[in-house]
Amino acid sequence: MKPLVGIIMGSDSDLPVMQEAANLLESFGVFYEMTIVSAHRTPDRMIEYAKTAKERGLKVIIAGAGGAAHLPGMIAAMTPLPVIGVPVKSRSMDGLDSLYSIVQMPPGVPVATVAINGAKNAGILAAQILSTCDNTLGENIEHYKQELESMVLGKVQDMKRNQQR
Amino acid sequence: MKPLVGIIMGSDSDLPVMQEAANLLESFGVFYEMTIVSAHRTPDRMIEYAKTAKERGLKVIIAGAGGAAHLPGMIAAMTPLPVIGVPVKSRSMDGLDSLYSIVQMPPGVPVATVAINGAKNAGILAAQILSTCDNTLGENIEHYKQELESMVLGKVQDMKRNQQR
Amino acid sequence: MKPLVGIIMGSDSDLPVMQEAANLLESFGVFYEMTIVSAHRTPDRMIEYAKTAKERGLKVIIAGAGGAAHLPGMIAAMTPLPVIGVPVKSRSMDGLDSLYSIVQMPPGVPVATVAINGAKNAGILAAQILSTCDNTLGENIEHYKQELESMVLGKVQDMKRNQQR
Amino acid sequence: MKPLVGIIMGSDSDLPVMQEAANLLESFGVFYEMTIVSAHRTPDRMIEYAKTAKERGLKVIIAGAGGAAHLPGMIAAMTPLPVIGVPVKSRSMDGLDSLYSIVQMPPGVPVATVAINGAKNAGILAAQILSTCDNTLGENIEHYKQELESMVLGKVQDMKRNQQR
Amino acid sequence: MKPLVGIIMGSDSDLPVMQEAANLLESFGVFYEMTIVSAHRTPDRMIEYAKTAKERGLKVIIAGAGGAAHLPGMIAAMTPLPVIGVPVKSRSMDGLDSLYSIVQMPPGVPVATVAINGAKNAGILAAQILSTCDNTLGENIEHYKQELESMVLGKVQDMKRNQQR
Amino acid sequence: MKPLVGIIMGSDSDLPVMQEAANLLESFGVFYEMTIVSAHRTPDRMIEYAKTAKERGLKVIIAGAGGAAHLPGMIAAMTPLPVIGVPVKSRSMDGLDSLYSIVQMPPGVPVATVAINGAKNAGILAAQILSTCDNTLGENIEHYKQELESMVLGKVQDMKRNQQR
Amino acid sequence: MKPLVGIIMGSDSDLPVMQEAANLLESFGVFYEMTIVSAHRTPDRMIEYAKTAKERGLKVIIAGAGGAAHLPGMIAAMTPLPVIGVPVKSRSMDGLDSLYSIVQMPPGVPVATVAINGAKNAGILAAQILSTCDNTLGENIEHYKQELESMVLGKVQDMKRNQQR
Amino acid sequence: MKPLVGIIMGSDSDLPVMQEAANLLESFGVFYEMTIVSAHRTPDRMIEYAKTAKERGLKVIIAGAGGAAHLPGMIAAMTPLPVIGVPVKSRSMDGLDSLYSIVQMPPGVPVATVAINGAKNAGILAAQILSTCDNTLGENIEHYKQELESMVLGKVQDMKRNQQR
Repeated sequence: MKPLVGIIMGSDSDLPVMQEAANLLESFGVFYEMTIVSAHRTPDRMIEYAKTAKERGLKVIIAGAGGAAHLPGMIAAMTPLPVIGVPVKSRSMDGLDSLYSIVQMPPGVPVATVAINGAKNAGILAAQILSTCDNTLGENIEHYKQELESMVLGKVQDMKRNQQR
Repeated sequence: MKPLVGIIMGSDSDLPVMQEAANLLESFGVFYEMTIVSAHRTPDRMIEYAKTAKERGLKVIIAGAGGAAHLPGMIAAMTPLPVIGVPVKSRSMDGLDSLYSIVQMPPGVPVATVAINGAKNAGILAAQILSTCDNTLGENIEHYKQELESMVLGKVQDMKRNQQR
Repeated sequence: MKPLVGIIMGSDSDLPVMQEAANLLESFGVFYEMTIVSAHRTPDRMIEYAKTAKERGLKVIIAGAGGAAHLPGMIAAMTPLPVIGVPVKSRSMDGLDSLYSIVQMPPGVPVATVAINGAKNAGILAAQILSTCDNTLGENIEHYKQELESMVLGKVQDMKRNQQR
Repeated sequence: MKPLVGIIMGSDSDLPVMQEAANLLESFGVFYEMTIVSAHRTPDRMIEYAKTAKERGLKVIIAGAGGAAHLPGMIAAMTPLPVIGVPVKSRSMDGLDSLYSIVQMPPGVPVATVAINGAKNAGILAAQILSTCDNTLGENIEHYKQELESMVLGKVQDMKRNQQR
Repeated sequence: MKPLVGIIMGSDSDLPVMQEAANLLESFGVFYEMTIVSAHRTPDRMIEYAKTAKERGLKVIIAGAGGAAHLPGMIAAMTPLPVIGVPVKSRSMDGLDSLYSIVQMPPGVPVATVAINGAKNAGILAAQILSTCDNTLGENIEHYKQELESMVLGKVQDMKRNQQR
Repeated sequence: MKPLVGIIMGSDSDLPVMQEAANLLESFGVFYEMTIVSAHRTPDRMIEYAKTAKERGLKVIIAGAGGAAHLPGMIAAMTPLPVIGVPVKSRSMDGLDSLYSIVQMPPGVPVATVAINGAKNAGILAAQILSTCDNTLGENIEHYKQELESMVLGKVQDMKRNQQR
Repeated sequence: MKPLVGIIMGSDSDLPVMQEAANLLESFGVFYEMTIVSAHRTPDRMIEYAKTAKERGLKVIIAGAGGAAHLPGMIAAMTPLPVIGVPVKSRSMDGLDSLYSIVQMPPGVPVATVAINGAKNAGILAAQILSTCDNTLGENIEHYKQELESMVLGKVQDMKRNQQR
Repeated sequence: MKPLVGIIMGSDSDLPVMQEAANLLESFGVFYEMTIVSAHRTPDRMIEYAKTAKERGLKVIIAGAGGAAHLPGMIAAMTPLPVIGVPVKSRSMDGLDSLYSIVQMPPGVPVATVAINGAKNAGILAAQILSTCDNTLGENIEHYKQELESMVLGKVQDMKRNQQR
């Protein structure tokens, strides 16, 4: 099966964060590919990746990066596909540099930005995008939201029990 | 024709910003609706809007808000549809409060955040999302990107001419 | 006895912070209830909680949340009761996102915001609010302030002794 | 009639902002007094004001200040009454200095902080606090919230009409 | 001998930071006193301290505080003596709240602010102030600056030796 | 008469801000000199100024600068006199760059920092420093503080009158 | 003559800022070219520009951009030449987003960043870089620094004359 | 052989960061010297260093400093050579104070600023500057960029292998 979502990251040090996007898509049964694409260290690979993404059958790209974090915006510049950006928490600015670099794109070239280190939400957002033309996936997302609710309700009960002791 | 994109905003003062999303969708021939939904002043209307959005045929929601800016996140909490958030520039924090409130969503409930006052990009992103199952729209987006490029190349020529004088 | 103060939090991970509000109220002999209400994961529960709070006899609500932190503001949108917001320190922005999301409410819907992780002060503030129609509680608060003073004066003596050695 | 709410501000330049708190209370029929009390320029007056506030019959104090903005916190240190702080927008830090100075109070001495320049909300909050022992005022607040809703719904209709032209 | 410098701090938890001011003054042979004065928990003690400082023979006051950090500014409001403020690093804002609260004083009431946790420099500054009418102390300060220089020059030699190995 | 206070600024564009320090000193009858000394454009002049300041009879230096704002710290590095730093509001960071550059001095070399654009307070602080060995000046400062109080009390009366109309 | 410095900017709206770099180089007699290259709207042009820069004879590139501001970093990724980045002041974050995006480059790919809107300094820096192998240019720079000094010394005289009136 | 690059730092505590600049230059075969020069504690040494740098044969200076971080800018004020500034991460502001102090230089005196703790990039930038008149060094830089690319491509393969397991 061909992947519908491409998960890319600027450095292998971003993997622990970005893996959550992969796990989420896997749980939804969405085919994805995951690899390293550095805007600054492998610009040719990045250009190639962005320009061939659509013809290779990808529907959505999730790009995570930290610091100057140009990867999501540059991919968005070179593909018509929707691009989701994950600001990865950085060493000296707590991720603010990553966030600003990713979200403050100029008119014409959007990046759908999620929270700092919010790769799980990037996965959900990719699934939501795909669900606009996939009813089964849409139902899975509704189911997922119900599970989120159930999980919290379970914790409500736990807290109640702890208080009664 | 039924609208595919719902554009909502927390206050009528956000209209000058949010109108750009509408204009963009119009230029792409995407049907949309646009109205005011205040999370804090009309919570029932917001709940109703979010909960019926999917069954009414919407595919994507664009929500703009400023300050505490809870609208995009609360809509996202109550619909399985992808939600795009537009942080509207605020009076005392230059839009940073709006941005943080919209982008920093917890795991499980993403909001696809664009730049401060980036309503035009919200429109493009909505079109990109819809294009994942609409080839014609996908071609329009590619065409749009080419036009962006041409427009810049035109300005390159202008600057050249000005320098030669 | 029916609780007068409702303490709610967006996630069970906020409990170590929010417990301080409960402890404070307990020391003042104010009846309270404490539970989890997630704006984003259990929106229906949140709506129910907010809309029934007054009729169930609550007089004040303390709501703690981190990150996008919509809980206090959304509760305030759906109840006429005073709502106290506790910004819980977040993982990547040191609580600034929580603070801005909670304090920057639009005209018409206030949230009484305390310091980041300031749940103890939220408890005191709730007691102060209740004391406006409860003289005994008012005296307890004056007594509490005297104790605060005594405790510091005790430390003044400790420091003096340490310096004389 | 004796005032129940004291509105104070650090400087007469804060009046345009703080007047909104007075207007709100007036519309609710709540008696208030309004005056200037500078923590740094009239410390004795401030001490006197804080220490006599309760015995003079005040139930709530609203204090607005900008910059270092010590007034709300110092009043809170010297009265058992609930104190609402209004961070007034400052000349060089856009109100962030005022906000941090007011909201970041130490354990034991809360200030109920509202948005930057949020004096109107301070007025509403004061009314909400008083309503915990005044059913009529409680009904007025519920009515106020309905009016807020109606006003937005009116603008919803306006926007609809404008779109149909 | 009567102390010329009063070192005060808002809480005993500030002692590890503020002790450096004491050590510095001790090394200069300047008499000082050091104690806890909490603006918010012991306001009467603070008023007493500030109002009697000059008549008790103090020439300079060093006040350290964290968070809302009103102590330095309130002392400055109630004494004609020069007041040096030390912003103590806080738990959730890295000391920015302390810094802004201390430095952003309104016209008429200055606080001489040093770096976050800069108590040592507060000590030096107090000595510099006293040296304006004490030639011996002035010479000590010049000597201190030479020692600072020598210490760095020593490290220059160390680094040189390490490189030659 | 020889000046006791040197007022220097990095650029003539800082004059409107720094003039307030001069005016304040003039009103106190303190002799001062005022000139331009640029750390970055006239480093030799700066070195000369700093190194001769004490022998020329200056007791205190007030240095104002914006942006990178190295002037106050570099002067402090080269004179044993107390140096007061005035962060001048900058074009793109609202004065935060100036403030951080001036206040965050390393251990050993303090700069007594006042508020952004707080030149008036720099003047008062200089007078307070001089008053540690000048009783008349000390009385003037006490008188000044009383005038500040009177001025505010006058405005209290004005506001009262306006309310009674 | 072939240009040695390439001045590029992301948008024609950056021209008023970037023109200062051109003026500076012109005054030094350094040949330059100036044009628009948008990272996000003309990625192919950017790639072409960066990859051919060295072989076309350029020695230094000055790139100005605002907001997400990826241009300087992406150029630096695709050329071995030194790249100077000018953060252009943005509409909603006062240039902080531009600054962080440009300066926070990952190890391996530096951008020599100057102040927000600091295009003039970018020009000087380019001249300094070229002067490392051009003695005449080196002398011009020394001369330029002397002129800076003279200009300030002239203003020192002006201020003196104004004070004597 | 005479050094072409001078690496200086404000304190020996900056060595772990600044060593990376030295290592990089060593790997490129560029001669450098490295020492401590404190702007605030050894101003005379700093003046001497800056003023003799060019005549001693240096071509580029790399200066690292934290906090108020005046070293790079002051060196730049006193030498015509290009100066690269490395903001060293500080204890209480995460390096933002260092960054602003170094990058926000006034017109006329640039500092080529790299990322917080970005000493490695300072080394590369120095090499790039020297390469403008040294073809061999230019080739080494191109080779270095290829190695960067290869290293990332190697990690791409690693990740692929890990996924296939």
